Amino acid sequence: MTRERWGDPNDAALTSWVPLDAAGDFPVQNLPLGVFEGTGGARIGAAIGDRIVDLRAASEAGLLDGIADPAALRAATLNALFAAGRPALTRLRARLSALLRSDGDPALHALGDALLVDRSQARMQVPLAIGDYVDFYSSLEHATNLGRIFRPDGEPLLPNWRWIPIGYHGRAGSVAIDGTPVRRPCGQRKAPDAAAPTFGPSAMLDIELEMGFFAAGGNRLGEPIAAAAAEAQIGGFVLVNDWSARDVQAWEYQPLGPFLGKSFLTTISPWVVSLDALEPFRVAGPLQEPPPLGYLQAPGPHGFSIELAVTLQSAAMRAAGVAPATIARGNFAGMYWSAAQQLAHASSNGARVRPGDLFASGTISGSTPDSYGSLIELTWRGTRPLVLPSGEQRRFLEDGDDVALHAWCEKPGAARIGFGLARGRVEPAGAA
Amino acid sequence: MTRERWGDPNDAALTSWVPLDAAGDFPVQNLPLGVFEGTGGARIGAAIGDRIVDLRAASEAGLLDGIADPAALRAATLNALFAAGRPALTRLRARLSALLRSDGDPALHALGDALLVDRSQARMQVPLAIGDYVDFYSSLEHATNLGRIFRPDGEPLLPNWRWIPIGYHGRAGSVAIDGTPVRRPCGQRKAPDAAAPTFGPSAMLDIELEMGFFAAGGNRLGEPIAAAAAEAQIGGFVLVNDWSARDVQAWEYQPLGPFLGKSFLTTISPWVVSLDALEPFRVAGPLQEPPPLGYLQAPGPHGFSIELAVTLQSAAMRAAGVAPATIARGNFAGMYWSAAQQLAHASSNGARVRPGDLFASGTISGSTPDSYGSLIELTWRGTRPLVLPSGEQRRFLEDGDDVALHAWCEKPGAARIGFGLARGRVEPAGAA
Repeated sequence: MTRERWGDPNDAALTSWVPLDAAGDFPVQNLPLGVFEGTGGARIGAAIGDRIVDLRAASEAGLLDGIADPAALRAATLNALFAAGRPALTRLRARLSALLRSDGDPALHALGDALLVDRSQARMQVPLAIGDYVDFYSSLEHATNLGRIFRPDGEPLLPNWRWIPIGYHGRAGSVAIDGTPVRRPCGQRKAPDAAAPTFGPSAMLDIELEMGFFAAGGNRLGEPIAAAAAEAQIGGFVLVNDWSARDVQAWEYQPLGPFLGKSFLTTISPWVVSLDALEPFRVAGPLQEPPPLGYLQAPGPHGFSIELAVTLQSAAMRAAGVAPATIARGNFAGMYWSAAQQLAHASSNGARVRPGDLFASGTISGSTPDSYGSLIELTWRGTRPLVLPSGEQRRFLEDGDDVALHAWCEKPGAARIGFGLARGRVEPAGAA
Repeated sequence: MTRERWGDPNDAALTSWVPLDAAGDFPVQNLPLGVFEGTGGARIGAAIGDRIVDLRAASEAGLLDGIADPAALRAATLNALFAAGRPALTRLRARLSALLRSDGDPALHALGDALLVDRSQARMQVPLAIGDYVDFYSSLEHATNLGRIFRPDGEPLLPNWRWIPIGYHGRAGSVAIDGTPVRRPCGQRKAPDAAAPTFGPSAMLDIELEMGFFAAGGNRLGEPIAAAAAEAQIGGFVLVNDWSARDVQAWEYQPLGPFLGKSFLTTISPWVVSLDALEPFRVAGPLQEPPPLGYLQAPGPHGFSIELAVTLQSAAMRAAGVAPATIARGNFAGMYWSAAQQLAHASSNGARVRPGDLFASGTISGSTPDSYGSLIELTWRGTRPLVLPSGEQRRFLEDGDDVALHAWCEKPGAARIGFGLARGRVEPAGAA
C-alpha cells in the first residue's frame, strides 16, 4: 500500500483487473472520489473505468483497515474524509491503486464484483457539503474581455487585477450535480434606453467554463494558509459551470458584485480528481508581472495542463440526430492566478476555510476567440452569433439547449486523466 | 397551549414564575431560541429573564409532546426546528408561554429549576448551521453616504438602488457568536498616490450595525418565494456586526464586490427573536418611490420598530473604569427594503433558500449623523474623529476597543423585547 511496495500510482504502465477503455476518463491512475446513491442511501465511491468501487463496502470488508476511518467512509458526503487532510487522501488513493492494479493485492479482486457498481446505473450527488463557495476571476483574457464588453470606454483591466486574485462569494446552496436541469431564471433587467427595469425571464442566459477545487484540512479562524503550503489543503478538482444571466447581472452588479445573475444554479462534475493524479500534468503558470506580494509567492510550478471543451446540442440538433458541436476549447494552464495563490489569498485575512469549501477558478478563456469560456465572449455580447451545425444561430442559450463541459489531461508517457462531465439542459422559465 | 386557552403570548400583562427584571431583554413575551453548551454538548434553549429553559430536557420530560419533534430538540443547532417551518415555531413559543406564565400550566413549574440554566453561566453558540449568508444594503441613508464617500464625483445613489434590494453573498463560515475576539485582519491596501499596494494589518477597521434574519422552511430550487408569503419563511431576527476593513475593501471591491474586506468575521447575537414576538412593533416602512416591481410588492406593513445602539469602550476607558460610550443610535424601522422584500428578491431567480440561511439587512443608518451605523460614516472616512469620554479620538477601531451592538423594542402597552448583545474586542493583527 506504499509506493515502496506497489510503485507509483501514476505509472502509465499500470493496468487494472477492472476492464478499462484506453480513451476513458477513469484509468487506475485516476481514482477520483464521489458520492452515489446506492443501497441504503448515499455512498462514497471511487471511479474506475465504467465502474465505481463502493468504498463503504470495501471498508466493511476490511480492505481499508488502517487507511481510512470507517466512520468517514460510512458518511453521505466526502467531508469527513477531506477533514482528515490531504495526506489521508493520498494514502487512500495509493491503497485503492494497490487493490485495483492487475498485479496488485489480490484481496479486492477476490471479492470481485461485490464491491463494484455500474457507473451508468449510479445517480451521482454533490460530493461534499459545501460550506462556502468562492468564485475567482483568474483568467487575464476573460477579465480583459469582460472589461472591454462592460466598460468599453475605460481600461479593460482594473488596476487591482494584477495584484489580487479577484473573487467573490457565490451561493453554496445553488451548487448542483451534473445533469441538473437549468431552469431559465427570471430577474430584473433594464435596456440602456428604457426608463425603468422589468422583471421576466433572462434573455441572456450564459455559461462559464471553470474548474474548481475542494478544500481538505482547513485552517482556524485568524490563521492564514501560506501560499507555499496551500496545495496541501486542496483535496481535488471538478468542472464548474457558473451559469450566468448576463442581463440580470449587468443591471444588478454595481456596487456589490454579482448576486442573482449567478445564484440560480452552479453545476459541477461529480468526480473529485486529486492533485496527486494531476501531478504528471503540473506546469508553470504564466509569468506574473508585477511580481505578486510576498503572501502570494510560492516556489515551484502551480499550474496544471488540463484540456477543456464546451459542447452544445440544441433541441433541433437532438431531434435530427446531429452530434453536439464543440463551441470552445481551452486549457487550464493559462490561468494567471494559481489555485495555491487563490487559497492563500482567500485566507490571508484569517477567514476560516473548512473541508468541503469550493473555490472556482473563474471563467477560463484563452487568447484566441475559439478559446473563450463564455457565450458573452464567444459571441461578443451577441454581436457575432455562433452558427451551429443545424444552421441555427446562438447569441445566448435557448430553451432545450444541452451544454456539456469536458476536461481531461493527456500527454505522452502518462495515463489519460479525465474529469467526467458537467452537463445541463435549459428549461423554460417558470411563471414570472 | 393555544391562544384560546392561554391567551395572547404577547399580552403585556403576562408575568412568569421565573424572576424577571422589567428592564430585561427576555420577558415571558419574548422567549427567543438559542443554542448553549450544556451537559453533554450543545443544547437548544429559550431565554427567559436571567435563565435558559433547556428545551431538550423539557422535551424529555414530556412537556413538549405533540408540539415539537423530540429529535429536532436533541440537535446541536436549530436547523431541524426551523426546517419544520414558522407555524411550528409559533406553536412552540405558545407552549413555552403557557408553561412559563405565572398563571399557566403548572407542569413546568412543578419540575422547577431542573429545566432552568443560569444564562450568565452558559456559553452560547451560533444557533444555526448557516448554509448561505447574504448581506443586503437596504438603508437609503447608508447607501447614499457610502456613495458620497467612495464616489464623490458621481450621483451618490446608483440607478439600480431604488429598484433592487442590492445584496451580495458573504462568508457563512466566518459568522461567529457574540464575544468572539476580533483579530485585526491583514490585507492588501493601496494609498491613492502609491504606485503599488502593500500587505499588512488593516488601518481602517470598522463596524456595521445590522439586523439579520434566519430562514425557516425554505423553497425548492427553481421556485421563488412570493413577497406576500415571505414572512412565513422567516424564523426570527438577530443583531449582526459585519466587521469591515475599509482600506482592504476600497482596493479590492471592483468589479466583483466586497470579499476579504468583510470575510474575516461577522458577529451575531445569540438569541433568535421571533417575528411573533416582534408583532407589537410592526410598522410601515418608508414610502417606496418608484413603486417596486410586482414581485417585490406585499400588502401591509413590513417594518419593525427596533431601537438600536452601538457602544464603544477603549482599553484606556476600561482601565479607568469609564463606562462604554454610546457612539450611535438608530431604529430599524427606517430601512427602505423590508425583510419580506429581501427574501422575495433573493429567491426570485429560483435560488434555493434553506432553513438556517442568514440574511442581514445591511448597515442601518438614519438621516442624522448620530444615527450612522458605521465609523466610516460617523467620522466621514476619518475626517471628523469621534471624541471618547477618555479624551481619545477614534477614526476607526483601535486594538483593545470593545464594541457592543444593542437592540430592543419598547412602546407603551407592550412588553419590552430585547435581543441581547453582539460584542467583540479588537485584538492585534497576527504576523503579516
